[in-house]
Amino acid sequence: MIGRLNHVALAVPDLAAASERYRDALGAKVSQPQALPEHGVTVVFVELDNTKIELLEPLGEDSPIAAFLAKNPKGGMHHVCYETSDLRAARDRLTATGARVLGDGEPKIGAHGKPVIFLHPSDLFGTLTELEEV
Amino acid sequence: MIGRLNHVALAVPDLAAASERYRDALGAKVSQPQALPEHGVTVVFVELDNTKIELLEPLGEDSPIAAFLAKNPKGGMHHVCYETSDLRAARDRLTATGARVLGDGEPKIGAHGKPVIFLHPSDLFGTLTELEEV
Repeated sequence: MIGRLNHVALAVPDLAAASERYRDALGAKVSQPQALPEHGVTVVFVELDNTKIELLEPLGEDSPIAAFLAKNPKGGMHHVCYETSDLRAARDRLTATGARVLGDGEPKIGAHGKPVIFLHPSDLFGTLTELEEV
Repeated sequence: MIGRLNHVALAVPDLAAASERYRDALGAKVSQPQALPEHGVTVVFVELDNTKIELLEPLGEDSPIAAFLAKNPKGGMHHVCYETSDLRAARDRLTATGARVLGDGEPKIGAHGKPVIFLHPSDLFGTLTELEEV
């Protein structure tokens, strides 16, 4: 049901510093920052050979990563995102086994312009998990 | 310098339950558990189309993930691992920019039988990061 790992999202308090470090210290290819005000984050994509890392910095009020950074001021691993070809079928299978979808349970349009759901981290052993339809 | 994402490691308190959930709820292909006593973990590989997730459960005394699970009893995202073709060159570049290598700074043989280093999470914005030579 799940296919590729679409991305790993890392929350950072300072996107410019993080971007520079991933480029200079790790020698990674990093994108320019992209503000996504409707999602409450600014993102830098770290392009790897097989997937990508998304460095996220809070943007505006009510950023969905603000509480995480308040708890983890240095930053940290925020979520993983898997791809699936049929999000509603995936959602139904998950909820049938007792896993909870955050929010009202319906897919939303995510940061890549595609339908996504987030699963409750407690139902996946502490890991916040996003599914994206591709 | 860094190439593929080799794996994302998720620490879990109950490997059998996690393995079942990734298989049944997410429809993922999961391996049999493999005990790695010299690394203090039992691991289940979740095979994705482009990379893998490693579910880690503590094994024996002094497991390197015991403290993490004491702090995060439900489990959580533990580290990411990137591949590199020349680990010593990568290490030298990292330390030249001020990033610290855990331990004595020399590569060790990791859980896949290949040389690895771990970088101090504080130097990568709270994310514990492994580099593996492939």
